[in-house]
Amino acid sequence: MTESGKPILYSYFRSSCSWRVRIALALKGIDFEMVPINLIKDGGQQFSKDFQALNPMKQVPTLKIDGITIHQSLAIIEYLEETRPTPRLLPQDPKKRASVRMISDLIASGIQPLQNLSILKKVGEVSKDLREETHLTWAQNVITSGFNALEQILQSTAGKYCVGDEVTMADLCLVPQVVNAERFKVDFTPYPTISRINKRLLALEAFQVSHPCRQPDTPTELRA
Amino acid sequence: MTESGKPILYSYFRSSCSWRVRIALALKGIDFEMVPINLIKDGGQQFSKDFQALNPMKQVPTLKIDGITIHQSLAIIEYLEETRPTPRLLPQDPKKRASVRMISDLIASGIQPLQNLSILKKVGEVSKDLREETHLTWAQNVITSGFNALEQILQSTAGKYCVGDEVTMADLCLVPQVVNAERFKVDFTPYPTISRINKRLLALEAFQVSHPCRQPDTPTELRA
Repeated sequence: MTESGKPILYSYFRSSCSWRVRIALALKGIDFEMVPINLIKDGGQQFSKDFQALNPMKQVPTLKIDGITIHQSLAIIEYLEETRPTPRLLPQDPKKRASVRMISDLIASGIQPLQNLSILKKVGEVSKDLREETHLTWAQNVITSGFNALEQILQSTAGKYCVGDEVTMADLCLVPQVVNAERFKVDFTPYPTISRINKRLLALEAFQVSHPCRQPDTPTELRA
Repeated sequence: MTESGKPILYSYFRSSCSWRVRIALALKGIDFEMVPINLIKDGGQQFSKDFQALNPMKQVPTLKIDGITIHQSLAIIEYLEETRPTPRLLPQDPKKRASVRMISDLIASGIQPLQNLSILKKVGEVSKDLREETHLTWAQNVITSGFNALEQILQSTAGKYCVGDEVTMADLCLVPQVVNAERFKVDFTPYPTISRINKRLLALEAFQVSHPCRQPDTPTELRA
């Protein structure tokens, strides 16, 4: 926290996991300061000694709040939910909460880690093939395999949003993953439910102010 | 659920994510039936039509309970915790709960998905190199990178176990990940805290009855 007591979010404009947390902070109306960590510049600022001391996983997001430091986006969101419960991001019914967490984990464990920057780098190394198509094919395979499952699951859980008619943690995972999918040129024809929910969510203010194209560290040419 | 009302766990003896749930069920004393899904046999039983209809992600574990079907091990454990709270697997203090979820997610999103069977297969394909050493090096890199961070984090959170002196969800993630690390011949010298906690946990009955070497689907030659 800053001297003024505000939480500090270590974030990168393009990091989909950082975006999840930015949406939560916006929805809950939590005032915070942002420290941008550029994952590309200087060979990756997450590898600096100072940042490693803060987060040994060398990843964003990291949140300093209430005297503690939390890593991992879903752990951060669950903490915010427990300490700042309004508006809630998990339904009251335990069965619906299970659906929300299942969808969140499907994205956070089953898709995102397999297509992030550091894994694509590793894939380039082992394949000795640094062409963009190799990265693209790998990421597309991972995302479509996850989205095929997600589209099917959403058909039984979704209302206006991923689970019923209230915005939940699952939606905070969905929208940033869709932007990643677009970046990797995934064909959305097979995903009408994902597309419909995503569109509706993007119309909400909290998803707009937290968007990668509107962050303090967004490069001018990517601003919108 | 079965006609008798027992939950049904779809599990594979060697799946570290299935093991997490088996420990939770054992600790909470929940009686259940197990349906083994062999991830190798018949080209992978998770790819059968019947299983895909149950879990579109084609992964274990899946739990049928209270009339719903839950995928994703941590979502399952959180549901068990909310509906069968004794003994608890999350501390009461929100800050300690945050530590538990942070460590759980570090393993469940940051390590395990990058070294599981299906990703190693994909790595073999892109590298056009199916030698065991290639798999081994990939898995070792992923695990040591995660364990380096975890060892450092545990130094400030651990008591007897990962967070304080009570067994939590973080411990349910730790022990199966250590077994994976041993399988991939990771050197444990740099990880005295992980080793100490793991040893203490393996002495507990719930970790023993749920162990991969003691499941109904464990092949005879791997039984202990």
